[in-house]
Amino acid sequence: MTRYLLYFLPGTGHLAAPLAHELGADIGEIEFHRFPDGESYLRFLTPPDGRHIALVDCLDRPDPKLVPLLFAAMTAQDLGARSVGLIAPYMPYFRQDVAFNRGESISARHIGALLSAHLSWVTTLDPHLHRLASLDDVFTIPGELAHATEPVARWIKAHIEQPIIYGPDEESEQWVRAIAEACDAPYDVFRKTRMGDKNVKIDVPASVDAGSHTPVIVDDIISSGTTLATLVRALCESGQPRPICCAVHGIFAEDAYEQLIAAGAAQVITTNALPHKTNAIDITRVLAEAARRIDLPQD
Amino acid sequence: MTRYLLYFLPGTGHLAAPLAHELGADIGEIEFHRFPDGESYLRFLTPPDGRHIALVDCLDRPDPKLVPLLFAAMTAQDLGARSVGLIAPYMPYFRQDVAFNRGESISARHIGALLSAHLSWVTTLDPHLHRLASLDDVFTIPGELAHATEPVARWIKAHIEQPIIYGPDEESEQWVRAIAEACDAPYDVFRKTRMGDKNVKIDVPASVDAGSHTPVIVDDIISSGTTLATLVRALCESGQPRPICCAVHGIFAEDAYEQLIAAGAAQVITTNALPHKTNAIDITRVLAEAARRIDLPQD
Repeated sequence: MTRYLLYFLPGTGHLAAPLAHELGADIGEIEFHRFPDGESYLRFLTPPDGRHIALVDCLDRPDPKLVPLLFAAMTAQDLGARSVGLIAPYMPYFRQDVAFNRGESISARHIGALLSAHLSWVTTLDPHLHRLASLDDVFTIPGELAHATEPVARWIKAHIEQPIIYGPDEESEQWVRAIAEACDAPYDVFRKTRMGDKNVKIDVPASVDAGSHTPVIVDDIISSGTTLATLVRALCESGQPRPICCAVHGIFAEDAYEQLIAAGAAQVITTNALPHKTNAIDITRVLAEAARRIDLPQD
Repeated sequence: MTRYLLYFLPGTGHLAAPLAHELGADIGEIEFHRFPDGESYLRFLTPPDGRHIALVDCLDRPDPKLVPLLFAAMTAQDLGARSVGLIAPYMPYFRQDVAFNRGESISARHIGALLSAHLSWVTTLDPHLHRLASLDDVFTIPGELAHATEPVARWIKAHIEQPIIYGPDEESEQWVRAIAEACDAPYDVFRKTRMGDKNVKIDVPASVDAGSHTPVIVDDIISSGTTLATLVRALCESGQPRPICCAVHGIFAEDAYEQLIAAGAAQVITTNALPHKTNAIDITRVLAEAARRIDLPQD
């Protein structure tokens, strides 16, 4: 069994000890500094020479993080690392996976090309695979997916009596159904119309009734929070109990958390894929299992 | 003569009309948007299909700008552009051109590799070539250099009676000497010791005397402003007249401009390579001339 050497990039410190423990890996030291002019400086204090290493990077708010990540990958290769993998608890840009209008950047493919050119393998947690069937549609390097379904379902079973799982839109059905099945809970998925970055419409049919169940809204990402806040409001207005919001990736752009609470959410729960005060579900085990499935080059 | 199609990325609008005029080029429309979660969206509204295009991008504070630039280059290629060049009035990361300590990222080479992989050619203005001899040390694509020497010297000659040109350190000698010669002015270069990002020491020997000349400090970059502010203070303390500060690239990190004025600078002058209220010297002509020297692939 290969022993990985893990380097934790800024914003991933909360995963360092548990992920190294789950993977039976060593932790390497990397120094990171931003100069007053905005340029990034980085230095491997623990030599990666001759080792299979992985860079751990939470790629929310991605643009300022991607350049240092690519520089780190190139530096590790310059220094003689045997392989340089990426463990990304959150993978950005997967929602722009086609040109919705002529002339648009297909960012999912572009980020795949960029990362594939400089890394040996990639592992990520529940990326937004909607039209994309698998990581192979984006990356030309080996990729392994981790899923939060089981840890999320376990949390719901342990904390919510008689849950009913709601998904805000058809894209969420893949997560909602799997989690509902793992909880032995009923589920329902609504229909969303997007009118802008921060303006959506969700129809809650009159037939929807949680009855004695506690509604748990499940989605992959809380970004601006608009989608979930809209559904929370629609459910409350239709006379349902105040729902719990549960997401794999809590990005919480701007005042997204406050908006959800103001809309009427009873509680907001996320995994620790991205650090936030709502973190309640640990995904280090499923992330480590995915990284362990990678076939490393043997020599 | 090939007619370029130019796309101006955010922060370069001030160069659009003059650069297109100097180059005899067309201006293409590109839409740029940042989503609430920090992801970039871009769309070519003017089709680049079949055209030799150039992306114009001021790469100060580079990390958030490099990802959209690379996405734009990849999108233009996907859409069928014949070639995709980069006109970068400022090229970042050229000061980290060796590993000063083991384990450091050699960022100049890494940015060269990233840009070379996705662009057809590159033009930039007075990059910090100190240990690097030419653009070919960094890029594997054709590159052409523009120099601000002539426009800077012309400005000094037109506005300063009897100038004496000062350089803050030995690295600045290349610009200082060329500009002094073009102005028929005397010059002197001092010795700098760097103790940190914002802490330098500059020795002004007792023999230095501007006499009836007006001191003009010339440097390539004003970043934190620490170097220039230190020299301004040292000159004033040694009884010289208050100097004028003149730089090619005015990055002005944080309160750099206010610091220079507080140190005693009589005036701060920059070129319009990066937009700032101190812009007084136009570099569009030398930038256009460099872009015109590129040998485009003919077919």
